[in-house]
Amino acid sequence: IVDLSSCFLQGILERLDAGEIVIGDGGFVFALEKRGYVKAGPWTPEATVEHPEAVRQLHREFLRAGSNVLQTFTFYASEDKLENRGNYVAEKISCQKVNEAACDIAREVANEGDALVAGGVSQTPSYLSCKDKTEVKAAFRKQLDVFMKKNVDFLIAEYFEHVEEAVWAVEVLKESGKPVAATMCIGPEGDMHGVPPGQCAVQLVKAGASIIGVNCHFDPDTSLETVRLMKEGLQAAKLKAHLMCQPLAFHTPDCGKQGFIDLPEFPFGLEPRIVTRWDIQKYARKAYDLGVRYIGGCCGFEPYHVRAIAEELAPERGFLPEASEKHGSWGDNLSMHTKPWVRARARKEYWENLKPASGRPYCPSMSKPDGWGVTKGARELMQQKEATTEQQLKELFQKQKF
Amino acid sequence: IVDLSSCFLQGILERLDAGEIVIGDGGFVFALEKRGYVKAGPWTPEATVEHPEAVRQLHREFLRAGSNVLQTFTFYASEDKLENRGNYVAEKISCQKVNEAACDIAREVANEGDALVAGGVSQTPSYLSCKDKTEVKAAFRKQLDVFMKKNVDFLIAEYFEHVEEAVWAVEVLKESGKPVAATMCIGPEGDMHGVPPGQCAVQLVKAGASIIGVNCHFDPDTSLETVRLMKEGLQAAKLKAHLMCQPLAFHTPDCGKQGFIDLPEFPFGLEPRIVTRWDIQKYARKAYDLGVRYIGGCCGFEPYHVRAIAEELAPERGFLPEASEKHGSWGDNLSMHTKPWVRARARKEYWENLKPASGRPYCPSMSKPDGWGVTKGARELMQQKEATTEQQLKELFQKQKF
Amino acid sequence: IVDLSSCFLQGILERLDAGEIVIGDGGFVFALEKRGYVKAGPWTPEATVEHPEAVRQLHREFLRAGSNVLQTFTFYASEDKLENRGNYVAEKISCQKVNEAACDIAREVANEGDALVAGGVSQTPSYLSCKDKTEVKAAFRKQLDVFMKKNVDFLIAEYFEHVEEAVWAVEVLKESGKPVAATMCIGPEGDMHGVPPGQCAVQLVKAGASIIGVNCHFDPDTSLETVRLMKEGLQAAKLKAHLMCQPLAFHTPDCGKQGFIDLPEFPFGLEPRIVTRWDIQKYARKAYDLGVRYIGGCCGFEPYHVRAIAEELAPERGFLPEASEKHGSWGDNLSMHTKPWVRARARKEYWENLKPASGRPYCPSMSKPDGWGVTKGARELMQQKEATTEQQLKELFQKQKF
Amino acid sequence: IVDLSSCFLQGILERLDAGEIVIGDGGFVFALEKRGYVKAGPWTPEATVEHPEAVRQLHREFLRAGSNVLQTFTFYASEDKLENRGNYVAEKISCQKVNEAACDIAREVANEGDALVAGGVSQTPSYLSCKDKTEVKAAFRKQLDVFMKKNVDFLIAEYFEHVEEAVWAVEVLKESGKPVAATMCIGPEGDMHGVPPGQCAVQLVKAGASIIGVNCHFDPDTSLETVRLMKEGLQAAKLKAHLMCQPLAFHTPDCGKQGFIDLPEFPFGLEPRIVTRWDIQKYARKAYDLGVRYIGGCCGFEPYHVRAIAEELAPERGFLPEASEKHGSWGDNLSMHTKPWVRARARKEYWENLKPASGRPYCPSMSKPDGWGVTKGARELMQQKEATTEQQLKELFQKQKF
Repeated sequence: IVDLSSCFLQGILERLDAGEIVIGDGGFVFALEKRGYVKAGPWTPEATVEHPEAVRQLHREFLRAGSNVLQTFTFYASEDKLENRGNYVAEKISCQKVNEAACDIAREVANEGDALVAGGVSQTPSYLSCKDKTEVKAAFRKQLDVFMKKNVDFLIAEYFEHVEEAVWAVEVLKESGKPVAATMCIGPEGDMHGVPPGQCAVQLVKAGASIIGVNCHFDPDTSLETVRLMKEGLQAAKLKAHLMCQPLAFHTPDCGKQGFIDLPEFPFGLEPRIVTRWDIQKYARKAYDLGVRYIGGCCGFEPYHVRAIAEELAPERGFLPEASEKHGSWGDNLSMHTKPWVRARARKEYWENLKPASGRPYCPSMSKPDGWGVTKGARELMQQKEATTEQQLKELFQKQKF
Repeated sequence: IVDLSSCFLQGILERLDAGEIVIGDGGFVFALEKRGYVKAGPWTPEATVEHPEAVRQLHREFLRAGSNVLQTFTFYASEDKLENRGNYVAEKISCQKVNEAACDIAREVANEGDALVAGGVSQTPSYLSCKDKTEVKAAFRKQLDVFMKKNVDFLIAEYFEHVEEAVWAVEVLKESGKPVAATMCIGPEGDMHGVPPGQCAVQLVKAGASIIGVNCHFDPDTSLETVRLMKEGLQAAKLKAHLMCQPLAFHTPDCGKQGFIDLPEFPFGLEPRIVTRWDIQKYARKAYDLGVRYIGGCCGFEPYHVRAIAEELAPERGFLPEASEKHGSWGDNLSMHTKPWVRARARKEYWENLKPASGRPYCPSMSKPDGWGVTKGARELMQQKEATTEQQLKELFQKQKF
Repeated sequence: IVDLSSCFLQGILERLDAGEIVIGDGGFVFALEKRGYVKAGPWTPEATVEHPEAVRQLHREFLRAGSNVLQTFTFYASEDKLENRGNYVAEKISCQKVNEAACDIAREVANEGDALVAGGVSQTPSYLSCKDKTEVKAAFRKQLDVFMKKNVDFLIAEYFEHVEEAVWAVEVLKESGKPVAATMCIGPEGDMHGVPPGQCAVQLVKAGASIIGVNCHFDPDTSLETVRLMKEGLQAAKLKAHLMCQPLAFHTPDCGKQGFIDLPEFPFGLEPRIVTRWDIQKYARKAYDLGVRYIGGCCGFEPYHVRAIAEELAPERGFLPEASEKHGSWGDNLSMHTKPWVRARARKEYWENLKPASGRPYCPSMSKPDGWGVTKGARELMQQKEATTEQQLKELFQKQKF
Repeated sequence: IVDLSSCFLQGILERLDAGEIVIGDGGFVFALEKRGYVKAGPWTPEATVEHPEAVRQLHREFLRAGSNVLQTFTFYASEDKLENRGNYVAEKISCQKVNEAACDIAREVANEGDALVAGGVSQTPSYLSCKDKTEVKAAFRKQLDVFMKKNVDFLIAEYFEHVEEAVWAVEVLKESGKPVAATMCIGPEGDMHGVPPGQCAVQLVKAGASIIGVNCHFDPDTSLETVRLMKEGLQAAKLKAHLMCQPLAFHTPDCGKQGFIDLPEFPFGLEPRIVTRWDIQKYARKAYDLGVRYIGGCCGFEPYHVRAIAEELAPERGFLPEASEKHGSWGDNLSMHTKPWVRARARKEYWENLKPASGRPYCPSMSKPDGWGVTKGARELMQQKEATTEQQLKELFQKQKF
């Protein structure tokens, strides 16, 4: 069933230029948090040094599920971030070590299949606190040095709330000569400074990104809507780029401009929002129909979600991923169940039309994002990115009912 | 923070007799299905041979999360089951090999900490199809031979829908001289032949089980209610045993007598029912208050759910599990988040009182179990455990609207 | 279409003894509260004197909808209740005046059709505060005097939480020589002193009631379950009586022993729980199948709900109510709608299977009854029916978080 | 408490020009359908002739609840509509008779208080089927003749889906010399031909309407959003008019462009969407803050909803409506309840923050509008307002799954 013969280890742009579908991987910080290796809050990736076996295993599962790209687990691995938040780590682990280990692990597993390794950078505390272009760029360059040394296949600037910083990241990554992808964690309303998605796309392509799109913060439907707006922006500007989408695996129809972080369930009560494999099949089809060819996931995406992308697009790609050995198409492996009514679920129509119950009759189906409950003053302070002292915050909170 | 000094490698009964809390592990088939190594439907554990690294890693995560027992991944690993359902496995893998590998992996990881290894057997197709006591017992004995050869620390008969078969299993396991635990996958209505929980408990203890309780099929609240009925049954019969509970990590207030298998969401649409870590903390406390001292989980339990048991009961136990290095109590690691309203979530009251939204406004909160929709004739056929031929089923289905 | 020829003005027992279905009326206090004539809280019926035209019109609507019985609007019209709560009424209106006016209005409208007039009494503050049998009976007798003077056709003791008081009421009403019906506002758990439904039924029949059952406090399904238990109680005691059911028109799967009053939505947020006409058709059929022949409603029942009973049972009764002139069976009047998809709703299967959405994604589907949130001390005080002073309550509330 | 001294029988424009708040009435067709006098589907008002007492009583209840305007019950009372749909009425009742009776009843009740009588016209089948301006205007003129003969106080053109027809109606009504209000049943997406709300407002004012806004089809929040867009349109065009809003009393966050008619629950399963009195108080406040001064309701609005408008705005108006004699502000009448936890509900914060449960755990909270499920061909046919023959529809339906 699994036929890999049509896949050759070509570069990311060769693949996309040839019209191939490239399947991304899933969300490392959330998956490893549940496995016990990442701390929610800081979300930093020192596990590459502390527990390489856990990181390696997760890479392997994504590879097996069909990922064509393994991203180095270097999310929030800039030096400023690691220092800022890393104080809970017993012995200090250097930024360089974390990034190097991430590259080594990703390459080791990529070599087990046909996957490419992508070195990734993400938004920095430096940008949020001081805005100095040189300093921010230096942080990216430090990570890039490791990526070059370890010779990753291409580069991704991901999880940017401000297009300004994303552009700086792209500019640094372009210095390498390797292909650069750039995704922002924004929704249809645009970036945190109000730049609409279409304009973000234009700026990123002009800065040198060959692949653009979104990742994180919003559910598949919302993310595809944002990508659609980016596509329109590029068309209007007569620019070309490959489209990429790596959304949450959580349903977030109720979130506001800043995405799932403002939902009251973030990050420890998101379970009822987790999408099913069938939701992902719908997402994969919709993404494909929109022209997105780099299709992956972000927080919440487990290996079986990635497999669902690969299974949905198997007709187009001509092969199934390895992990489909352990999965029947549309539940057909239920046809041998002892109970006839469970057997009756071995059909596409069944799972396509199921409206899964939450088992939580005392809970609502949507939430008001928390930010709304915060005084305008608090929000403005944050948006101005001023250094909000503990004292200021304390005062702000005393004025509102939390 | 993590202090293991008070733990010595004592046997399961020594620990429980001394009043210690023993934390079980989580659900292998569901976790490994999502990771791509187990096929839903058959649910058989040939991964122990095919992908030992994946099984090993999951064991490690449970150990790190606080599990004091690592169950061998031998669920549905009786010979009849493996033959019956194993036909999709490319090369035939013998029952013995699967069971041996499971023991080796569990022991290897157990040795990394202070955990015990428990050899596990579960209900057999032989019982469901023919009821011959000798034949059924022979199936259990075959697995037991491996467990003895590999010298597991104790034995568990788990996931039995009929107390009659569970008793047979306990009788076989008792031949070993090792301590035996027995858990049934029943709810407050009792076993599939109508034997109430209290009576099931009495029969299991009389057959030789030192630890009794329930696993799988129902959510924590329902499972604890069943254990409560078992406890009452033992008290009425003036019998003594340790209590054990390993429920689902899915909310199932709406399921019927046969548990979550009859829910329309089983097994590929259960996501919105997944319990949060806070739900598990409530469960652990409630279990403890009921007198349950072997507290673990079954399908749906991921490492972070097991960690939640260990964190809730840390005051009683005097220490936190290793994985708590990467977890703040009640979300306190959010106190450094950049957004004040996210920081405001770093409190116990917040998470305790959160009613998490599903993000699915087009879905209901409860489902009608599917079995209800099946003709009475079909259900009776199944309950009589007659060999339902494909032809009979086809006819039955033609009479109803699926 | 409407054929009344088979109906003669026979007494209630002649009708029921002959196997006829008797349709009750709906809920006056809730309907008139929404129309602006009854005050929620006291729920007293001085509108019979203050606004007879409004009471008359509601009677007329129920008659037109198919009611065979018009109950005098004398709920909570005992002297002690009117005095206790009537202080907001500008000019004092005597108990006698309220009850007399109620009888006159009911008779006037009953004469427009074939309906019987039933004089009704309900539980008294006297019972709740002092328990003196003589005093409580005197209160009922005062109302009975009016009913006899106005020559109502039969009598109903309804809305009793304690069977003891209900028996006293039946004893008084039986003095009249007229047929007596008795309904309690209890659920399957029984009355407030713990007397189970079966025993309540036996006591009521022994006291002289010819018709027994339940009204108010619970939804149709729960109420029918209570009636079923009453029926079983009578059968076990070899007693006979006609069965009656007048439930809420609100869904209350989540309420506790004391019914909808403890739900947080009572009484001003019950809207999302209002049952549809199709829910009522299912109720009417289920009631009929259970052997209930006096089928009506209580709080929340509007004229169209009563019509739904009459329409569902039209095949058995042989005729439709007058108001069906303005209603097509199962929505067939939609067949002329301009939009094809609205026309497609003109079918029984459509409405039978509709799972109506609440339009309230931020609300849950079930609530925890409020009484649970109250300190045990407060509940015990109330249950002991001691005079709880304002000061005591204030103190109690200060101890809890409302 | 009730003080009417500040109210004089001034005309609608004198009141609005003086800055007074004018409270409209509620929804006649839905309220009278539930009372048994109007047929869903046709929704025609022949009850003015058949059952004047029922229409009179409803007018009285709205007056008592605080309505300053009584609209003649002449919805869908144009001759073409009555003929088209009136065939189920036993004896033919002329258009003139229906309209005259409506005027007489409204005036009779208006004289009992200080209310104005408004003669109302609504969209016509003539427009939908042929578009001939002369013919459509003739239909309106026929009704206007009655309104002039009966000397109503002002005129309302309401429930128009197309601004073109609404403008024609306003032009006819303006011939009378009386003040004209015009409301459309549109949402923020605009009329059925795609004219946005702001432009609709401009056209209506230019045609002669002194008061403009929306009625029906959408819930209060959506309706106010549409009025906001209308207000912006007028400001941009430097035009002035009073604003009016008469929304549904149903929550419809999930409906599409054509409003609640496309929801699967329309019209017989809308119960769980009914708004509470507290929802209406929020609506009234929000409307007032937006500058709307003619505030009323449409389908689903019962007398107690109108009272809620009057109670919310009592501080601004200086008096309460008559029906508030039977209603405590924010539930304060619960303060005498026997149960302490019910007494605890006698507070504004309680009701303001209540998220009322539906009691329907098997139902979703939102629905997909039905029109979406209809083939594009069918929708286009309808939108082109071509005469869709039964045969055409039959064919269309055969192509889709209903």
